[in-house]
Amino acid sequence: MGQERREAPGRVLVGQLSSRVGERVRVCGWVQTLRLQRRMQFVVLGDESGAVQLTNRREVRPGLDEQIDALTVGSAVALTGTVVDAPQVKLGGIEVLVDAIELVSTAEQPLPIAETTNPDRRLDWRFLDLRGPRQHLPFKVGDLLERRMRAFLFGRGFTELHTPKLMGAASESGAEVFRVDYFGSSAYLAQSPQFYKQMAIAAGFDRVMEVGPVFRAEPSFTSRHATEFTGLDLEMAWIDSVDEVMRLEEELLAEAIAGVRDGLGQQVEEIFGIDLVVPATPFPRMTLADARRQLVQAGWRPGERASQDLDGEGERMLSRLVADRFGHQFVFVTDYPVSVRPFYHMRPANDPTVTSSFDLIWNGLEVTTGAQREHRHDVLVAQAAEQGVAPEPIRHYLDCFRYGCPPHGGLGIGVSRLLMKLLDLPSIREATLFFRGPNRLTP
Amino acid sequence: MGQERREAPGRVLVGQLSSRVGERVRVCGWVQTLRLQRRMQFVVLGDESGAVQLTNRREVRPGLDEQIDALTVGSAVALTGTVVDAPQVKLGGIEVLVDAIELVSTAEQPLPIAETTNPDRRLDWRFLDLRGPRQHLPFKVGDLLERRMRAFLFGRGFTELHTPKLMGAASESGAEVFRVDYFGSSAYLAQSPQFYKQMAIAAGFDRVMEVGPVFRAEPSFTSRHATEFTGLDLEMAWIDSVDEVMRLEEELLAEAIAGVRDGLGQQVEEIFGIDLVVPATPFPRMTLADARRQLVQAGWRPGERASQDLDGEGERMLSRLVADRFGHQFVFVTDYPVSVRPFYHMRPANDPTVTSSFDLIWNGLEVTTGAQREHRHDVLVAQAAEQGVAPEPIRHYLDCFRYGCPPHGGLGIGVSRLLMKLLDLPSIREATLFFRGPNRLTP
Repeated sequence: MGQERREAPGRVLVGQLSSRVGERVRVCGWVQTLRLQRRMQFVVLGDESGAVQLTNRREVRPGLDEQIDALTVGSAVALTGTVVDAPQVKLGGIEVLVDAIELVSTAEQPLPIAETTNPDRRLDWRFLDLRGPRQHLPFKVGDLLERRMRAFLFGRGFTELHTPKLMGAASESGAEVFRVDYFGSSAYLAQSPQFYKQMAIAAGFDRVMEVGPVFRAEPSFTSRHATEFTGLDLEMAWIDSVDEVMRLEEELLAEAIAGVRDGLGQQVEEIFGIDLVVPATPFPRMTLADARRQLVQAGWRPGERASQDLDGEGERMLSRLVADRFGHQFVFVTDYPVSVRPFYHMRPANDPTVTSSFDLIWNGLEVTTGAQREHRHDVLVAQAAEQGVAPEPIRHYLDCFRYGCPPHGGLGIGVSRLLMKLLDLPSIREATLFFRGPNRLTP
Repeated sequence: MGQERREAPGRVLVGQLSSRVGERVRVCGWVQTLRLQRRMQFVVLGDESGAVQLTNRREVRPGLDEQIDALTVGSAVALTGTVVDAPQVKLGGIEVLVDAIELVSTAEQPLPIAETTNPDRRLDWRFLDLRGPRQHLPFKVGDLLERRMRAFLFGRGFTELHTPKLMGAASESGAEVFRVDYFGSSAYLAQSPQFYKQMAIAAGFDRVMEVGPVFRAEPSFTSRHATEFTGLDLEMAWIDSVDEVMRLEEELLAEAIAGVRDGLGQQVEEIFGIDLVVPATPFPRMTLADARRQLVQAGWRPGERASQDLDGEGERMLSRLVADRFGHQFVFVTDYPVSVRPFYHMRPANDPTVTSSFDLIWNGLEVTTGAQREHRHDVLVAQAAEQGVAPEPIRHYLDCFRYGCPPHGGLGIGVSRLLMKLLDLPSIREATLFFRGPNRLTP
């Protein structure tokens, strides 16, 4: 036995081994732990789908003992063996009795990071930092979340488009943009698909969405900021009011979170100890003025930069207040004043000092900004002038409103921030595959 | 009649009107044509879903005649009316008898472009250029194509990840990269997710994919090049050979094209006169050396830049040759020489002068590049040195192969190029929402 030539079976994922008891299988993965005893050798091998114990009784198969003794933690190996029941083994009550093993790629020792290594150095070795089910799960959840959001939006008549990230002029808002050398001239990185999704509406698309990178040249070092992150943007034509956008978003999030719970809720519970809660709709709504009033009553002291807005502390306090009062994790804050929103926001007819806009705050973190846009060319031009926005750099944008453009509105969701909140991650770094910040461009 | 106050009904898309005969509806869209006669007024109104004739008999409703007379082509209007059968009307055999109309957004006259306007000026007014079902269809098809590709890949165990577009060092290949001002230093725009998807494999993800923008700072002005386009990239661990990647791709494309045919085949037939053909699998395969030999026999004279490769003319001739011989639109060209592929390609054990690589050519256009990657650290370092690639800028990449990395391979698909071929579009500009080229950064 073990000497006869046998055809190597096809690879089986570790997560599927429990249904293959009694069969000879091929398994591929990483060495997680080694326990090399005088008579027995035990290896825990992991792949994306799980971990399993490999077992070898010494002195049965010539050469195999030495191959296993030579393994190092982290090495990639392919092996064949027989799956057997092993009730004493904690990893699923099975083990694989190895008959042949191939060391495919050796891991140098020691590994450059350990559990205790500081977070910044772990980011230097992000591919090692990412190994393991706890580190993979946020990306599995993110993937499923996006799939469910897409499915919901396709069902509501949205078309996914791809808008350019290279722009000829710095885009709309006050946020800093990155400049790019462009064949002897300059381009700028889009800090949102805002203008382009509106152009798509002017081009006759009824409802459009996009998942893609957005770039913010802000020197922010908080746990919730990144210079590049994934945004989900959408825009819808022929809305009656901004409330239509909010209603869409609350249904979108409720359905997407329900989808994640159905697909990965058990893993989230096991690994993060979190019971995913599908939010009830409608979400609570509060005007910014009202929110600020209540926060001040509750002891909030807005900093200078939040004299007409909310700051991080205000957002956190507001969520606690909403949780107490409504038992809800989400709150739409509406009617931001004209002074803190870009010129292209529509203003309600009955109060020109505010905008038909909202932020969505989830457990203390802003995860969405949305609004109805001004589609009347003359009003838009006047609002741009009023806010000191020069018309020439945004000429192509303004032109969209000269040849027939319906009322429309939309929103932008920070997908990594959704993930942070869903899994209660302490930093956006853990919700991002390869984080980008002012001091972080590698790996 | 017409004077009593009635609740405005909810909006109905034009494409759904044929099922609403006899009902009073609200319709929103753009004025496509106006025919204002002495006794009757006819308006063709279009939205994303179709076009319909609106009809008004003059002197029935006070004020309505004048409102319709004041319309301009391109204007956005919302109206209510009753859907009636009208067998004489070519647009679906129905019309809407208008009872009230609101001019929401007036289109200035004349429109700045017409059917006959040259393509470059049409791009200046892309939002107008994009109006209409023929212009929308490529994006509807692209959306569906991506959805079907995602569905296929999720079914095969792929996880969608988002890799950074901002890199700390110029990335791997010879292609020129864009430099970005980054807080007083430099960043570079990723010209592919290559390194990052490989890092994800080294991080223990089994199969990964991404749809996102890729950037190429090449001053190319052909109909098939853009400085920014959408790529679908994927990478899979534990492959036995590059053939596994090719087998995946042919199944992926066959299923995705079948999905597009099922969902939009009729519209593609009606608007583009194209009968979508689902390609048979497996696709023909040919080594580059063999392809070059046969092309030269057929009269191909490679230019200087194609002394070891194929040029555009070679790709077109090859597809004609394959179509004649195999009756197939696709051909995998394999075994590209080491000299024309980046250092990280694996080389087959029996011929170190070539790489385990392929291009996929569809009807004369390269739509994919793929390969098995070298995962052995020592071999990789030697190959980088051999090709003159300095180790320091790619240190983070090379490090991925020091701590256990399985064999893996993958590919990158140009999604806009797929669209070009699927719909036989003359230029990538028509398969791109807002084209970017060396001379084109607007709108």
